[in-house]
Amino acid sequence: MTTVTTAWVAELVDALGTGGVLVDPDVTASYARDEAMLAGAGTPAAVVLPRSTTDVVAVMKVAHRHGVPVVPRGAGSGLAGGSNALDGAITLVTTRMDAVLEVSPADRLAVVQPGVVNKQLRDAVAAHGLFYPPDPSSYDWCTIGGNLSTNSGGLCCVKYGVTTDYVLGLEVVLADGRVLRTGRRTVKGVAGYDLARLFVGSEGTLGVITEATLALRPAPQRPVTLVATFGTTAQTGQVAERVVTTGLVPSLLEVIDNTCICAVDDLLHADLDRSASALLVAQSDAGGAAALAEIEALAALCREAGADLVHTTDDPAEGDLLLAARRMAIPALAQLGATLLDDVAVPRSAIARFLDGCDAIAARRELTIGVLGHVGDGNMHPTICFDPADPGQRERAFAAFDDILELGLSLGGTITGEHGVGSLKVDWLEREIGPVSLDVHRSIKDALDPAGLLNPGKVFRRRG
Amino acid sequence: MTTVTTAWVAELVDALGTGGVLVDPDVTASYARDEAMLAGAGTPAAVVLPRSTTDVVAVMKVAHRHGVPVVPRGAGSGLAGGSNALDGAITLVTTRMDAVLEVSPADRLAVVQPGVVNKQLRDAVAAHGLFYPPDPSSYDWCTIGGNLSTNSGGLCCVKYGVTTDYVLGLEVVLADGRVLRTGRRTVKGVAGYDLARLFVGSEGTLGVITEATLALRPAPQRPVTLVATFGTTAQTGQVAERVVTTGLVPSLLEVIDNTCICAVDDLLHADLDRSASALLVAQSDAGGAAALAEIEALAALCREAGADLVHTTDDPAEGDLLLAARRMAIPALAQLGATLLDDVAVPRSAIARFLDGCDAIAARRELTIGVLGHVGDGNMHPTICFDPADPGQRERAFAAFDDILELGLSLGGTITGEHGVGSLKVDWLEREIGPVSLDVHRSIKDALDPAGLLNPGKVFRRRG
Repeated sequence: MTTVTTAWVAELVDALGTGGVLVDPDVTASYARDEAMLAGAGTPAAVVLPRSTTDVVAVMKVAHRHGVPVVPRGAGSGLAGGSNALDGAITLVTTRMDAVLEVSPADRLAVVQPGVVNKQLRDAVAAHGLFYPPDPSSYDWCTIGGNLSTNSGGLCCVKYGVTTDYVLGLEVVLADGRVLRTGRRTVKGVAGYDLARLFVGSEGTLGVITEATLALRPAPQRPVTLVATFGTTAQTGQVAERVVTTGLVPSLLEVIDNTCICAVDDLLHADLDRSASALLVAQSDAGGAAALAEIEALAALCREAGADLVHTTDDPAEGDLLLAARRMAIPALAQLGATLLDDVAVPRSAIARFLDGCDAIAARRELTIGVLGHVGDGNMHPTICFDPADPGQRERAFAAFDDILELGLSLGGTITGEHGVGSLKVDWLEREIGPVSLDVHRSIKDALDPAGLLNPGKVFRRRG
Repeated sequence: MTTVTTAWVAELVDALGTGGVLVDPDVTASYARDEAMLAGAGTPAAVVLPRSTTDVVAVMKVAHRHGVPVVPRGAGSGLAGGSNALDGAITLVTTRMDAVLEVSPADRLAVVQPGVVNKQLRDAVAAHGLFYPPDPSSYDWCTIGGNLSTNSGGLCCVKYGVTTDYVLGLEVVLADGRVLRTGRRTVKGVAGYDLARLFVGSEGTLGVITEATLALRPAPQRPVTLVATFGTTAQTGQVAERVVTTGLVPSLLEVIDNTCICAVDDLLHADLDRSASALLVAQSDAGGAAALAEIEALAALCREAGADLVHTTDDPAEGDLLLAARRMAIPALAQLGATLLDDVAVPRSAIARFLDGCDAIAARRELTIGVLGHVGDGNMHPTICFDPADPGQRERAFAAFDDILELGLSLGGTITGEHGVGSLKVDWLEREIGPVSLDVHRSIKDALDPAGLLNPGKVFRRRG
């Protein structure tokens, strides 16, 4: 066993140099798991740090020759265990492939390597007056490769969509080391299957993304911000639904519930209304009078729904302050104990029922659950707070995590809006998509990775 | 042979009734080809007209049991021969599955059967103040099923994207008759592979789409319209590029060249400037002052580029008149002879070079080529006019069709922006995507349709 391991590790070192291959368990341990507390993780046999597509090809050829599984990984900011290590496998870390290769204002696109940090890309294109919308909360450290693999969203989605909406073309190293280039640099194109969007969101199970051509947008205009508080979840749900039916498209529409409000107030001493059922934050980046009109229309909807407080500002600094209550919700909840962050998307007409359902789960499981979320697109993140040292609480927290998924499905929703399936929700995926879709997933996986080397066991199990 | 045919035809009649199965060659001939003059077509052994998913399942089970190929077809408005009949095969026509099953203003989506005509859907959702953007030129007779299969675009794309951008979920009958439901009703969702977008644009080679859940948008506001003429292609290209770099996002940005201008003027006697190199039409639906400002900014770009004429109007009726020159370009060119409509998308920075290249091809091949196109997204439709009774012209026309694809690829473009590969551009697809991508296409096809029953030979050839 040792000699076999040595043989393929030696081949990796030949290809990438000693600095590109880590085998010291004390060092490789730091690449073993992502941010998903609930997901299990093994110990990688080796961690490789390629600097180029050529390096990735070399790694995949060694892996293919020796039948060694490979777990692709970006910065490790994942929330579903998608890049968690597998015993005896190679973990392939893309963080050294971090070049922004091109920004083209004339074609409004950028070409990047997968290890580019989301914020690095945002800053690079902002210098040209351009905008890359997808903005996961971890935008200052997560990588574009990880964003592509999980099809990340963020606060922008209500107006600007998710990662896949910005993918024009990809370079992907396949399981056997061949290099696939797919997609295009043009705005439109229908030559063949949409392979690029098949790889996006496939969580490293179909190939290793080594380059991406991404569409950009013009820089958004200065935001106008609204904050409102409500006494009931029904009022909050009514506003969410009325935003949709009246055709408003704010650039941000976020909610935090009473648990989050109190936690944030405890942390920031922000003088929030601790009796409010929910706090809503919205922005419009439509620009000038259009933005003011959009926010005023939203304020009217809030008042009609019976909001206790409605406040608007066109001062960006004050807008940032108002948004802080939403941005600080997770750190504030973390003060209450360990946290399990769930990720469910429901139809926007079901928001109030979802909020009420989470309250019922918290009561039944005798736990604190703070709900925050992208209410504008129905993607909600109930966050379970518990004491991990208390076995009973721990068990109830895990049960509540599943209760929330069950609730989401019962409302016509999905078990993951933006975090992915990873290793955390494999059983739930089967339940959501059903046997025919599972079989189609397995057929496509077998077609592209017949030996099952790429991130095996993540997203779904192979036939077996 | 006859008895075998009779056996499976009888099974189809058992399932669909005699009214659902056509075998009279005089009748089936009308389903043999689409609008692509250049593409070959066979004679269908039977044409089936299912009324439900159950009917489609029955057809695919018969086809699967007897190894009979199936060609899915909508209204036959295709421009690449994608639904052209194959000798001895079943042509499955979805036009009787024409129900709009649901319009949900609360979740801003619609659920439709594939035979719904694009305009029927547009009208159904407009009654709720909603908007389904994809608008191919054939919108008053093409079906949503066909739009999904080719990932149709239209005039809306510069601002609103293409069909795939509106697909939330699909029901698909697979080659063996199993029913796959994939996707969702929620705005966001990353549970498993993006199978829906794999089926979109696959031109009937992977399954038969029997239901679609489509995202909608709020109704657009009253458009403001601009028309401008230019003396040189360089000026036109400059405006196209400056629109991108200044961050303008008009809701429509179309161009016709001098050949089209003269043909339209001959047809409509519209007093157009017959000396102009190009005529540009743009609209903004940003609403009120924002739309006026957007069109004024665009007018300034046109003047800076040296436009001979710039005219704007916020009167929708006058706007429609101005747009008529663009809308009538193809009928006007058809007055000059037979027409071959090509479909190339190029990066927006290459528009001027593409227009000049088309002029050079017309001169070299001694043919008339009128270029019209969605200049805002780089999707251009050079239209070759020729006398089909003249063998020399005919041959030169076919050669010019290929020259245009060659030109598009040489500029970093694609051989099809929105019409699809069909049977017309199979060889060109191989050339554009290369051997690795072709192999991946074949692997996915084999995984989902191992017997090769669905629209065989379209888009790409199978191995062997």
